[in-house]
Amino acid sequence: MREDFQFRLDRLSDHRTLMALVASDAMRDATTALLTSDVVLASKVIGQETFLNDMLAQGEQVSLDLLAREAPVASDLRRVVSALWIVSNLHRMGILAVHVARTAERRGPDTEVPAEVRTIIEMMGQVAVHLSETAGRLLNGSDVSAAASLESEDDLMDTLHRQLFDALFAADWSHGVAAAIDFALLGRYYERFADQAVAVSRRVVFVITGENIGGDRTAAALDATSAIR
Amino acid sequence: MREDFQFRLDRLSDHRTLMALVASDAMRDATTALLTSDVVLASKVIGQETFLNDMLAQGEQVSLDLLAREAPVASDLRRVVSALWIVSNLHRMGILAVHVARTAERRGPDTEVPAEVRTIIEMMGQVAVHLSETAGRLLNGSDVSAAASLESEDDLMDTLHRQLFDALFAADWSHGVAAAIDFALLGRYYERFADQAVAVSRRVVFVITGENIGGDRTAAALDATSAIR
Repeated sequence: MREDFQFRLDRLSDHRTLMALVASDAMRDATTALLTSDVVLASKVIGQETFLNDMLAQGEQVSLDLLAREAPVASDLRRVVSALWIVSNLHRMGILAVHVARTAERRGPDTEVPAEVRTIIEMMGQVAVHLSETAGRLLNGSDVSAAASLESEDDLMDTLHRQLFDALFAADWSHGVAAAIDFALLGRYYERFADQAVAVSRRVVFVITGENIGGDRTAAALDATSAIR
Repeated sequence: MREDFQFRLDRLSDHRTLMALVASDAMRDATTALLTSDVVLASKVIGQETFLNDMLAQGEQVSLDLLAREAPVASDLRRVVSALWIVSNLHRMGILAVHVARTAERRGPDTEVPAEVRTIIEMMGQVAVHLSETAGRLLNGSDVSAAASLESEDDLMDTLHRQLFDALFAADWSHGVAAAIDFALLGRYYERFADQAVAVSRRVVFVITGENIGGDRTAAALDATSAIR
């Protein structure tokens, strides 16, 4: 029974690593679709939504079954509970990538990302992908030091978010209201994606140390959208 | 031991009902602050953030303790696990109300909400408050029928969200880029607040029926921001 439990816990861990990979690839492709006006690539990312929903449902179901049938204690209990949190964070990351792709699709094949925000969006995409890759490695190897680097990269995301809003609010913004709204919302998607990656890392720390520092609480504290202007 | 467990489960239930009340009041006050340019009221809502964070941490800690010490099964297990999800949803609702209040505070005391969006924002606020009040009653009384009404009210929120974007994108929008960005983001805060309330109701249904229909999954499917334009 214990061997079966460990086997299923390991499978749950693989499941989350896969979800992190899906979120990471989706965000990379969505950003490329946005920057290159590639509606076919955008549509490919949007098509991942059902898969993301299924992975969330499976992850939750396996975690609930493990809790119900094995009544784990101590570090095993922490692993199962954290899995419930983490699949939700990773799912949300994937959905935020889908939001980016939907924006790219709606803007259409013949649109340009304005020069004033292009580099910022490029960098936000790179930081987001790197954060999700780091979260994936954390989920694999339980390397607590990676959790700290993840938080400092999230600070970089906040700085980029601030720069994005500075560009949108600049007196010489000449691309109209619609584009400004698009990039304000896109900024929020990237920033929330980063927050969710940090929440994953906080939950991994909880598994290792038993100290619940509150994945969502931190994300909320770092969620500075409304304060940045 | 069982009596103590039931007592602590009931206290956890009270805790969530209180969180729903805090989220509801915060959203009502934040909307009033926005519509009346009342920066003092806005600042009062923003001051709730620490309290919201503490309530999340307490709710999670009590749930984790119950899981670790009592190893509950069947419907008791569902109650504890759903509590972990629900405190996170309710916390997020409170934080979104804080975002609305931050926007009101930043816009300052001498600003007007443009007539084109004023009624829509008023209604979004009313629907949001009603949704969180209904969620609070669901958490109290386990009335599954209220869950269905909550979902149809969320549809109303999506309609309002669409109307808001129509107004912002209208050719005769004359209030500038900054105001358009403010109201686009505000629209997203109200819509996400509604999604989280629906997620709470889905989790309550899970407690009663044992059927996990995925609070976050539903929220994601209903989260139509990127599709509405």
